[in-house]
Amino acid sequence: MTIEYATPYRSRSFIPPEPGKPYFVEKGLGDRAHLFGDLVTVYAGGEQTENTFNFFTVEGPKGNLIPAHSHPDTHEVFYVAQGAVRLFVEDLAGEQQERLLTPGDFGFVPKNCPHSYRMERHHSLVVGVAAGPGGTFERFFETLGTPTDELVLPARPFVPAPEKFATVPQQYDVRFLPDHQWRTGDGQS
Amino acid sequence: MTIEYATPYRSRSFIPPEPGKPYFVEKGLGDRAHLFGDLVTVYAGGEQTENTFNFFTVEGPKGNLIPAHSHPDTHEVFYVAQGAVRLFVEDLAGEQQERLLTPGDFGFVPKNCPHSYRMERHHSLVVGVAAGPGGTFERFFETLGTPTDELVLPARPFVPAPEKFATVPQQYDVRFLPDHQWRTGDGQS
Repeated sequence: MTIEYATPYRSRSFIPPEPGKPYFVEKGLGDRAHLFGDLVTVYAGGEQTENTFNFFTVEGPKGNLIPAHSHPDTHEVFYVAQGAVRLFVEDLAGEQQERLLTPGDFGFVPKNCPHSYRMERHHSLVVGVAAGPGGTFERFFETLGTPTDELVLPARPFVPAPEKFATVPQQYDVRFLPDHQWRTGDGQS
Repeated sequence: MTIEYATPYRSRSFIPPEPGKPYFVEKGLGDRAHLFGDLVTVYAGGEQTENTFNFFTVEGPKGNLIPAHSHPDTHEVFYVAQGAVRLFVEDLAGEQQERLLTPGDFGFVPKNCPHSYRMERHHSLVVGVAAGPGGTFERFFETLGTPTDELVLPARPFVPAPEKFATVPQQYDVRFLPDHQWRTGDGQS
């Protein structure tokens, strides 16, 4: 039995709009969005968890380092389910680390720590949980990017309109750090 | 670079005891416990997230339905990474559902909803997040079960001493429901 719901985010979603209801979502069928070259799929949001946590995946092509950023009020998990992802993170004392994560490997980025990553295999898939006392930010991706019904990566990268960068990131606890430099071995490229 | 820490839970752990520190954990190398036939591995706990969420995996053999239970204050995610897991859940109105989940499939169990599951393939692996406004419960497994340095399933099931069932579950927001019956097709077996 498969039930679809109308929610504040989608006219058809497998995530029930009211909290307190158990539900199942088949692989790939969460609420989807395209942002740059990636496909982001939300399986649970703050509405389901009394704002304690969310659960989403990010699938991407082998590509470039994404822009360094931090989250003032959000802790974030990177759990690799497919492929290979190089995670870069800087602690609050300015010490930097990078690590290549393959399936089953885990990385934790506390709030306020600058971080970035680069997918190093096509169809890499990262499971994410991102939350803190201030709530969850899973709708960032479709607000800066665009909601989609597609099940695949964007055929061409979805580039947000420039004015969106002035408002959307801070609304979702994302701070881009355009002047940030990675001094670790693989961060230069 | 791999750093090990002494924490309140382990003399050697890859999870740093102080919050605010970024870290990486290789597949399988989180804080491990044996409980009945399962290997539970904690990658992040409440200490890391200001008590907003945790992140753990449960690996088990093909086996029996685990005892039905609920969590009065904890919402729970079941995301299958390997194998096949049949998840049973009852909503707050008493309606029951079951679903076979294979890799990439997702199930959400809100607080207070009775639930159970059965691993239907050997070496099934479930990713779990379990949290609510009251906190997280990832140390339930090693407290009812036993911490282990092993990387594999228990050679023989670890059965907790009977008196532990009187105190440990309620301490970790777990309520066993010994009289619960599944009326769905596959819950009988």
